[in-house]
Amino acid sequence: MEYRKIKDQENYEDTSQNDIESLHRKPLSGVVINSAPSSLGGSTKSSWKLKSIVTLALTLLTSSQAILIVWSKRAGKYEYSVTTANFSVEALKCAMSLVALAKIWRSQGVTEDNKLNTSFDEVSVYPIPAILYLIKNLLQYYIFAYVDAPAYQILKNLNIISTGVLYRIILKKRLSEIQWAAFILLCAGCTTAQLNPSSDHVLQTPFQGWVMAIVMALLSGFAGVYTEAIIKKRPSRNINVQNFWLYIFGMIFNLIAIIVQDYDEVMNKGFFHGYSFITVCMIVNHALSGIAVSMVMKYADNIVKVYSTSVAMLLTAVVSVFLFGFHLSLAFFLGSTVVSVSVYLHSIGKPQPQK
Amino acid sequence: MEYRKIKDQENYEDTSQNDIESLHRKPLSGVVINSAPSSLGGSTKSSWKLKSIVTLALTLLTSSQAILIVWSKRAGKYEYSVTTANFSVEALKCAMSLVALAKIWRSQGVTEDNKLNTSFDEVSVYPIPAILYLIKNLLQYYIFAYVDAPAYQILKNLNIISTGVLYRIILKKRLSEIQWAAFILLCAGCTTAQLNPSSDHVLQTPFQGWVMAIVMALLSGFAGVYTEAIIKKRPSRNINVQNFWLYIFGMIFNLIAIIVQDYDEVMNKGFFHGYSFITVCMIVNHALSGIAVSMVMKYADNIVKVYSTSVAMLLTAVVSVFLFGFHLSLAFFLGSTVVSVSVYLHSIGKPQPQK
Repeated sequence: MEYRKIKDQENYEDTSQNDIESLHRKPLSGVVINSAPSSLGGSTKSSWKLKSIVTLALTLLTSSQAILIVWSKRAGKYEYSVTTANFSVEALKCAMSLVALAKIWRSQGVTEDNKLNTSFDEVSVYPIPAILYLIKNLLQYYIFAYVDAPAYQILKNLNIISTGVLYRIILKKRLSEIQWAAFILLCAGCTTAQLNPSSDHVLQTPFQGWVMAIVMALLSGFAGVYTEAIIKKRPSRNINVQNFWLYIFGMIFNLIAIIVQDYDEVMNKGFFHGYSFITVCMIVNHALSGIAVSMVMKYADNIVKVYSTSVAMLLTAVVSVFLFGFHLSLAFFLGSTVVSVSVYLHSIGKPQPQK
Repeated sequence: MEYRKIKDQENYEDTSQNDIESLHRKPLSGVVINSAPSSLGGSTKSSWKLKSIVTLALTLLTSSQAILIVWSKRAGKYEYSVTTANFSVEALKCAMSLVALAKIWRSQGVTEDNKLNTSFDEVSVYPIPAILYLIKNLLQYYIFAYVDAPAYQILKNLNIISTGVLYRIILKKRLSEIQWAAFILLCAGCTTAQLNPSSDHVLQTPFQGWVMAIVMALLSGFAGVYTEAIIKKRPSRNINVQNFWLYIFGMIFNLIAIIVQDYDEVMNKGFFHGYSFITVCMIVNHALSGIAVSMVMKYADNIVKVYSTSVAMLLTAVVSVFLFGFHLSLAFFLGSTVVSVSVYLHSIGKPQPQK
């Protein structure tokens, strides 16, 4: 059962309302256009609406992503090289950002906020999330020396805690006591929902395995929180420009990965060897999810992102019952209950305004 | 742990500190003695202290109870008849109440509040909890036609929810939204902590099994809440008198059970056949736990009782690791985390005073 895959799918910036608009050839809503270009401070109601739309989009995209993965696995093993698929995702996101920008330039002209040109000062931090993910992905090869795959799925829930802690430390945002309690519950609930008879293996994880799992959780949490910091540092900057630069570095790092890992295969069989209809669906889905993550970072925050992907994990399992005849365990029901209570507590537990 | 503080602290009577006092032959504290005989309205601090002591006592007694059961099971199967043991527990509690009363009569004289004589009006409701438990115990024989023993352990957690709901409906006491959320978490957490690879059987429980489990949870919850209502109805009445009458009916109903189930065995082998040292320990422990439950009902409430016994369940598991070499599962850690957060939320989520 594959629900988690996606969780590390943290793409960095955002773009998406305009991307989606340009993709679907119909404006999403006036709200989006109004609040897109500059500071969002304006209307509380429309920013709330925007926040809900991007969160819902992320949740649906993330769960359909997991379902596509299960579907593709059922269809047989991967025939294409994963590195080229990752590169294609970054390239597609980059192209979507440019299309959205072109549309904006046509309607509003080129301004200081939506021009593609940038300063070294602005762009210098953009490679950092990509580098953090690269290190994390490298570590991922080594952790399997100490931890098996199901145990790794369980340990990945540490990301939830690390994101919360780093969000608090780096972005200096407050969570109320109830929201902290809710966050611990989210982590416990997600893990419970994934329990299976072999999960207890994770308790035999050796010390090195724990250290690596914690380091990976911190890297992943740090990358997410750092991306939010980058995007929110310049509130008036158009998100499509921010995305464009993030994705450019994503393309560069994935190109390096292709050269290191799959150079011969790509040279002999071609870049798109083994791509099927489902591969294309997955790439489009990953690109849209990536853009949704960026939008959540811009208009909401990492906490919303974590909740969104956790709820998506549960949704995926429920949908898989109908699509693939999966059985839900008692642990899944208990975990879902805890996650639901956590979502409720998070929403009622907003911190009191500071005096 | 003092969850609901003083708010509902209309303690109507009490007795138990004197019970314990008489048992241990040393006064528990000045507080206890001061607050013993009549209305407690006085010191908030001492009622808080009293509440904490009774809650702690219940938690420790309940967990040692479970450990004694494991110990006795390890020692071999029960050789004594369970009905005589239950009768002995009721008789011992009755005797303890009388000893405590005798002590009070000697120091304070016989008053309206501590006299043993009672009116039909007062005593008429006392058999009801005993009858409810009797019906529940009868149903217990039938439910095993539909549900196996491990699944029954899981379903018993429905008691937590039924107690909360009936507490709200019958005693008309408020729980805040956060406390309700905490209560759902308590149920989910306790169930999670008890998960084992065969727990999923419970999802195959037939409809009749669910109905019986729910009816039993309601009976058990109703008996608990009704006992609290009886004890709190006359705040100034001494708890030892109330206990005495409750336990008298307990003795009567258990006597009926002996006659129905074990008449021949008792006649042939004697009342105390098969009793060992550990049997006596269990009887004493059950008697003390029963008194602790009454005290919690008097000075706290059913909600505190549920929390106390849930925490005791977790304590038991931890102690069993050391005593019996049990292994704790990942599910246990997750469930314990959820229960801990629940206790925390319950304590910070006190309802705002009503205007």
